[in-house]
Amino acid sequence: MGPVNVGLDIGATKTLGVVVDADGRVLAQERLATAPGAEGIVATAVGVVEALAAAAGAVTAVGVGVPGLVDVERGALAHAVNLGVDGEWLPLGDLLASRLGVPVSLENDVNAAALGAVALTGVDDLVYLSIGTGLAAGLVLDGRLRRGVSGAAGEIGHVPVDPAGAACQCGQRGCLETVASGRAITDAWPSGDVPAAQALFAAAAAGDVRAVAVRDRFAAGVADAVRVLGLSLDPGVVMLGGGVAQLGEPLRAAVSSALHDQAIASPFLASLDLAGRLRVVPVDHPVAAVGAALLGPREAVA
Amino acid sequence: MGPVNVGLDIGATKTLGVVVDADGRVLAQERLATAPGAEGIVATAVGVVEALAAAAGAVTAVGVGVPGLVDVERGALAHAVNLGVDGEWLPLGDLLASRLGVPVSLENDVNAAALGAVALTGVDDLVYLSIGTGLAAGLVLDGRLRRGVSGAAGEIGHVPVDPAGAACQCGQRGCLETVASGRAITDAWPSGDVPAAQALFAAAAAGDVRAVAVRDRFAAGVADAVRVLGLSLDPGVVMLGGGVAQLGEPLRAAVSSALHDQAIASPFLASLDLAGRLRVVPVDHPVAAVGAALLGPREAVA
Repeated sequence: MGPVNVGLDIGATKTLGVVVDADGRVLAQERLATAPGAEGIVATAVGVVEALAAAAGAVTAVGVGVPGLVDVERGALAHAVNLGVDGEWLPLGDLLASRLGVPVSLENDVNAAALGAVALTGVDDLVYLSIGTGLAAGLVLDGRLRRGVSGAAGEIGHVPVDPAGAACQCGQRGCLETVASGRAITDAWPSGDVPAAQALFAAAAAGDVRAVAVRDRFAAGVADAVRVLGLSLDPGVVMLGGGVAQLGEPLRAAVSSALHDQAIASPFLASLDLAGRLRVVPVDHPVAAVGAALLGPREAVA
Repeated sequence: MGPVNVGLDIGATKTLGVVVDADGRVLAQERLATAPGAEGIVATAVGVVEALAAAAGAVTAVGVGVPGLVDVERGALAHAVNLGVDGEWLPLGDLLASRLGVPVSLENDVNAAALGAVALTGVDDLVYLSIGTGLAAGLVLDGRLRRGVSGAAGEIGHVPVDPAGAACQCGQRGCLETVASGRAITDAWPSGDVPAAQALFAAAAAGDVRAVAVRDRFAAGVADAVRVLGLSLDPGVVMLGGGVAQLGEPLRAAVSSALHDQAIASPFLASLDLAGRLRVVPVDHPVAAVGAALLGPREAVA
């Protein structure tokens, strides 16, 4: 195999790396547990890239998706509390480039995943809704990644939709994230070692009436988020991703059902067929790492 | 004066036409009462264009902003109930072109106004929030008009933000439009011949306690809409327009105050400084007609 592009998805617990072809098909994949702190992040990333190079050939460029606030032009990271990076900007792109000897591009992980979703679907007008611990969206509009003037585009987890809703960590009340997130599921359905979303959906599928109610409230919250995105942006596809989307098709089905319920009384909403635009990332598909691999050089990103 | 581009803003009560220079500065302006029905719309538009031609020179192209659903490629209009156009698509672009002998482009009036707001501000990343009888937004993102895959981008008037809110004409409950619209003001503050928004804000400014409460609830609703747009799209500017924006600076001040109130408990929201992005269309500035004049030929629009 010839020179290859590598994409990394750096998370709090693991760092996932892929080698992809020009269409985003995964040719090789590696993962390591993420060591803590700035030093740990860099060392782990270098380890993953070296493993991929050994498996797939000389690496020519690396793209990185990472949670937190990213300065794409400088390749710098801030406010990545889960990674132990806070306060000062961390020049992660330069640190990795000097260790690896190849150009390194940095992008917010949800934005990277949106690009990965474009590669996966072939649809270049798409919103990626990341349902992880929190809730956020990545936007690719008519082929272009929309970051917003302050990098806040897609922060719909903090859109309040219920004045009588729960207090949100952001200081507001009734935010979408208080209902439509992994944290919301864990709070409503504590389950020990099993991922709460899996436990909840399994219990609901088995007929547990209380689980059905909790699941349906969660799904209605995700549907609210899809409606906000649909009415704001009218995208071609809404792709459900993030940790909770490891549920796969049952998640899509539950949200689709909630969207149909919302549209029953509204011919206007029904005409938009938001349920028909809904997809879910295939289980275990490394969508953020794939998107990171397709980022292109940092110069071209700006 | 040489050959000129004309922009028309066709409304239910009046048709406003402008001649602009390449930067969107208004060189001439005419208006006529809109005659009813398809025949009336065409006749009125032709009358305005002829008056502008007499005043400003030979017309080379016409752009039209019109309420309702617009097929930009075909230059056709539908669902313009206020104009008496419903059911069949009306080929308004072709009808006008054949009467005027020049190319005619058609665009939704809120989208046209968003383009006019770009010309007015020189900012090419902007959301135009039209507060008329209803509530809708026009989006220009990084210099490009965002219509959405089904023309529904910016339909945020029908985003529900309160499960206990009022029933909306769209069939949902608690939509932004039920609070943040001219219709909502008229319902809450009936005022006979005087525009309700003017009457309400005057009474509030004069210290009427009930008027202050009604005004502040309206302003909070507009702030909710700005927050939805800000968190979804993170635009550089949010420009308030539409009939209610004839209030001018007092409208901007009331919405700005409501945005500050929302951000008091949320450092995250405060960091976005949505209030600082807020502007209002200057009173009597024909922003939709100006944007229509800058539409360009229909071939290039698609």
